[in-house]
Amino acid sequence: MPRIAVGSAGEASQPDALKAALAEFISMLIFVFAGEGSGMAFNKLTDDGSSTPAGLVQASLAHAFALFVAVSVGANISGGHVNPAVTFGAFVGGHITLMRSVLYWVAQCLGSVIACLLLKFATGGLETSAFSLSSGVSVWNALVFEIVMTFGLVYTVYATAVDPKKGNIGIIAPIAIGFIVGANILVGGAFDGASMNPAVSFGPAVRQLVMGQPLGLLAWPLRWLWDCRRCLQHLLHRRKHARAASNHRLLR
Amino acid sequence: MPRIAVGSAGEASQPDALKAALAEFISMLIFVFAGEGSGMAFNKLTDDGSSTPAGLVQASLAHAFALFVAVSVGANISGGHVNPAVTFGAFVGGHITLMRSVLYWVAQCLGSVIACLLLKFATGGLETSAFSLSSGVSVWNALVFEIVMTFGLVYTVYATAVDPKKGNIGIIAPIAIGFIVGANILVGGAFDGASMNPAVSFGPAVRQLVMGQPLGLLAWPLRWLWDCRRCLQHLLHRRKHARAASNHRLLR
Amino acid sequence: MPRIAVGSAGEASQPDALKAALAEFISMLIFVFAGEGSGMAFNKLTDDGSSTPAGLVQASLAHAFALFVAVSVGANISGGHVNPAVTFGAFVGGHITLMRSVLYWVAQCLGSVIACLLLKFATGGLETSAFSLSSGVSVWNALVFEIVMTFGLVYTVYATAVDPKKGNIGIIAPIAIGFIVGANILVGGAFDGASMNPAVSFGPAVRQLVMGQPLGLLAWPLRWLWDCRRCLQHLLHRRKHARAASNHRLLR
Amino acid sequence: MPRIAVGSAGEASQPDALKAALAEFISMLIFVFAGEGSGMAFNKLTDDGSSTPAGLVQASLAHAFALFVAVSVGANISGGHVNPAVTFGAFVGGHITLMRSVLYWVAQCLGSVIACLLLKFATGGLETSAFSLSSGVSVWNALVFEIVMTFGLVYTVYATAVDPKKGNIGIIAPIAIGFIVGANILVGGAFDGASMNPAVSFGPAVRQLVMGQPLGLLAWPLRWLWDCRRCLQHLLHRRKHARAASNHRLLR
Repeated sequence: MPRIAVGSAGEASQPDALKAALAEFISMLIFVFAGEGSGMAFNKLTDDGSSTPAGLVQASLAHAFALFVAVSVGANISGGHVNPAVTFGAFVGGHITLMRSVLYWVAQCLGSVIACLLLKFATGGLETSAFSLSSGVSVWNALVFEIVMTFGLVYTVYATAVDPKKGNIGIIAPIAIGFIVGANILVGGAFDGASMNPAVSFGPAVRQLVMGQPLGLLAWPLRWLWDCRRCLQHLLHRRKHARAASNHRLLR
Repeated sequence: MPRIAVGSAGEASQPDALKAALAEFISMLIFVFAGEGSGMAFNKLTDDGSSTPAGLVQASLAHAFALFVAVSVGANISGGHVNPAVTFGAFVGGHITLMRSVLYWVAQCLGSVIACLLLKFATGGLETSAFSLSSGVSVWNALVFEIVMTFGLVYTVYATAVDPKKGNIGIIAPIAIGFIVGANILVGGAFDGASMNPAVSFGPAVRQLVMGQPLGLLAWPLRWLWDCRRCLQHLLHRRKHARAASNHRLLR
Repeated sequence: MPRIAVGSAGEASQPDALKAALAEFISMLIFVFAGEGSGMAFNKLTDDGSSTPAGLVQASLAHAFALFVAVSVGANISGGHVNPAVTFGAFVGGHITLMRSVLYWVAQCLGSVIACLLLKFATGGLETSAFSLSSGVSVWNALVFEIVMTFGLVYTVYATAVDPKKGNIGIIAPIAIGFIVGANILVGGAFDGASMNPAVSFGPAVRQLVMGQPLGLLAWPLRWLWDCRRCLQHLLHRRKHARAASNHRLLR
Repeated sequence: MPRIAVGSAGEASQPDALKAALAEFISMLIFVFAGEGSGMAFNKLTDDGSSTPAGLVQASLAHAFALFVAVSVGANISGGHVNPAVTFGAFVGGHITLMRSVLYWVAQCLGSVIACLLLKFATGGLETSAFSLSSGVSVWNALVFEIVMTFGLVYTVYATAVDPKKGNIGIIAPIAIGFIVGANILVGGAFDGASMNPAVSFGPAVRQLVMGQPLGLLAWPLRWLWDCRRCLQHLLHRRKHARAASNHRLLR
């Protein structure tokens, strides 16, 4: 198999690929329903109170348990990616073709959106939480957070599930993949929302759009890209100010 | 094996089938004792206070741990269904006969009832919690909740424990089955009680009957059916009102 | 192998039996150190406050995690009983001889005592918690609790670890054994302390004796026996009262 | 293989040894990031409030989940030590050479330092918590704590992961190793910080040095050695006082 494979357009209509995409859709739905939903349950129980250690534990367990299950149920059908970043990694590593990657991405984003719509209805109209940063946390901070945590997740997927020399570790790989996210939410949940998953942010954003908040869609792209954009804006803003300030000096 | 098998009436007296039914009875008892009991423990510790994130975590872990164990201990004897909905799925899928399904259902409901009676006695007469919806949650909302969560559970059972191509995933299947319930309780526990299991609702309802509250029995049928009934009533009620209103207009 | 085997007295000096007893000692020490210690940590953090749902979760996880590990580390040397009741079951089932059972019991009780003494010292003299019943919980209630929970534990041990037909379930048996205790503590912890293990109650009792509270030793026997005795006393007390009352009537 | 092997200096440049050291570096980074970070998240959410049972649960799960994952991902490359004490044990047991041990130690300490620097930046400058003892806990107490808990950890590593007769237990070994630390944090976290890992204490200490607090570096050595030193100082202090007192008496 070549290092990177494009695959044929006809692949998208093969039963095997469609079945795998359906599995990704369902796994994503299960994961986002529990993950996003646990945050909404916290908000309901505490009347949108600020986060507490018990709330972090609740969010951590919901994500850890649900991701572990979502990876398990998809493992034998689609590989159990449940994350566009993992699918991207598998594509770059030559494990799946580009065509199949696109199928997976569409299925994952769709699963996230449907999960958020179901949550919106099942909770009687409560808001799913879009991304937000805690006070005192800059986008640069959040970028470092997401890089470290996403690296940990993708590294775990490779070392326990993809590596052909994984041996017995492969048996508990879905647990490890779920629990590294659970562990990192106990850290990042207090600072930047701890996404580690572009498709998870896609769902709430689209739901906001559907519900008449079109600006929410702007938040959908990769968290990393989003952070990068913010960082760039930040830089440009500073430079503009600096130039304005120097112009000011020149004019005086 | 045919797609759906009725089985002979004599099957109910075969040692093998009775042993499996006994295993379902015990597994159900273990699961309901911990699951329902954890809610009673919360009520005792907080003087029937309203639910908190820490309470959700407590309920989630009790259900996740106990269901994982209940499935594990029954796996080699009865298949470890521990849920009438899973048994129904196994029957529809042609994995067990109708006779054996009925045996399982009776055993599961009996296990749930006995667990509730034991809890009632062991706690010095505390109430087991029957179903109730949080304020602001309609029966339609709850129906969506239960459909999504029960789908997630049954899908997990099939993908990790029933699928003949499950491979190594089968080793951790009982953990996945327990933990998907744990994850969903962290969501649904704040909204509709998160049953996902008709036999679990059967126990508290019958106990109320035995304890002189015969109306409690009305709550026993499948949560789904119950919700459907409520939804129908809701519709009929509206239509009746609408008709009454239109009659009113006609009479004027 | 006969149904019940006494074994020879010389067995106690065989390296194999002594190694197994040492393994039971260490496993018990690990389990009691974390289990009892977590209760002492709760008392320290809350200034001996009353139990809360978060406290139950803390106790549950400490017992579940530590018992899982204690069973795992002993599994290949002694079988990983970590509980006199399990050892008793293995003896009755003909899996180990009486001599080895006695060795195990001594090792288990010793491990519990050493763990409590280490905790007493390491915490700067804090009390290990001996058994106590919550207000409103009679000894009869507690007896039912202990019977149901100990049955669940022993049944789990047999179905997942001892049963020769256990198959793949055997791989996750230590997790199941730890987690059923964790699940039941989330219930029983609010009512009767949830021992499920005679050796665990032995430790704090002996420590009290060593620390100059000889009456503590009276609490050491099997929790079940202790409860039975209390129940018998209760019965005798009532009968005595009834007789006194009837004598009273006769004398009048 | 001899009981203790020094190995050649050239070993440090072998691709295999370097790859293993890199794996230790990454595993340590993942573990310390989640472990230390969860404490910083607690401090942020509670405004540096005092520890609570929910906070202990949060710390316990973060360490348990992250160590389990860190051991899993390293298992097939470096053996998944993630702890200088475990590496030392493997060296004494003749499993790895001295050269490789030194490589591992450097990699582990480096991973811990980098994790702390990343946390410092990602949290917008919050402090990583260095070791501190609770009030009422002497260094002697802490020493006992650390001995018991580190013994439990190293024993678990040997019985489940290193022992050639471990059999099926080896499959769940990483979970057991992570969870024994999680269990002990539920105890020790309330008393002495529960390090059980010299490299974990190395990171915060060095970060303090880098951030202009050079005295922090004094805290880096093995916790045991540190405690021993403090105990010795304590003894010497007492003896000095005693001698001063007796001199005083002599002079009078």
